[in-house]
Amino acid sequence: MITSTITYHPIGTIHSPHKEIDGVPIQPSGAIGIEGVIELDKEYEPGLKDLGGFSHITVLYHFHKSQGYSLQVKPFLDDETRGVFATRAPKRPNPIGLSVLKINKIVHNKLYVENVDILDGTPVLDIKPYASRFDAVEDERIGWLSSTIHNSAVKKSDDRFK
Amino acid sequence: MITSTITYHPIGTIHSPHKEIDGVPIQPSGAIGIEGVIELDKEYEPGLKDLGGFSHITVLYHFHKSQGYSLQVKPFLDDETRGVFATRAPKRPNPIGLSVLKINKIVHNKLYVENVDILDGTPVLDIKPYASRFDAVEDERIGWLSSTIHNSAVKKSDDRFK
Repeated sequence: MITSTITYHPIGTIHSPHKEIDGVPIQPSGAIGIEGVIELDKEYEPGLKDLGGFSHITVLYHFHKSQGYSLQVKPFLDDETRGVFATRAPKRPNPIGLSVLKINKIVHNKLYVENVDILDGTPVLDIKPYASRFDAVEDERIGWLSSTIHNSAVKKSDDRFK
Repeated sequence: MITSTITYHPIGTIHSPHKEIDGVPIQPSGAIGIEGVIELDKEYEPGLKDLGGFSHITVLYHFHKSQGYSLQVKPFLDDETRGVFATRAPKRPNPIGLSVLKINKIVHNKLYVENVDILDGTPVLDIKPYASRFDAVEDERIGWLSSTIHNSAVKKSDDRFK
């Protein structure tokens, strides 16, 4: 049993049109064109220098509405029970979300972003510049997702992770 | 000022050949073929079900040797000062690392992985299945990285983030 704890502090908040847990696109691929704003706390604004040269960011955030977790879950995209680490389900031992978003513009401490699949009011943990050379893999195998991933463009969240 | 705190617990530990902060590859692209083991705490083993069908994972981890942060830093790949959120530097307000790794095999609670750019003993926060459809972007712009990213295959960490 690992008992140490790690403490983080939100650096900002995501404003998005997704106000309820039901009906949130389950991935950015299902949220094409949906706009939102990542508002960093004013003190972090200097950390955004040079980010405007990038077209995309990886945003890490805290699934603040996710309570508890199961190690085996039925993901939104499937009706089979899967190991939670083989899914992107929000109810995880450490409920950290990851989305690759398009940057439209950065004004002071606000990032105007697109393809937002994140609930309004979500606390932001980190922002990283996206680079294919670091972050992309070609010809990967995607296991159980291969038969259902095409549904990610239309499937929305439901109440199973409340 | 956002004052709330978020508490996580490591789900496991990364074992890697990188024993010292100096000389760690700065990205998986500089660690091709380097093997390591992600050992989850036994209690989380059921969460790995179905992950063997995937060729790659995104691992989130805590930069446990990173102390403090600056909002503007000189990244390993550059001698200019950049906003920390436009870099992958370990000294971040919330020092969370992200690496996309290749899975060689999964045996019980151990994931044998490749392309490991992570320090030995690093606490693991989360494991997600990698899928291009969710995580990859084509034709992205990468700002200041565009002139130096080719060095990520050979550049190692030095002492600037101790």
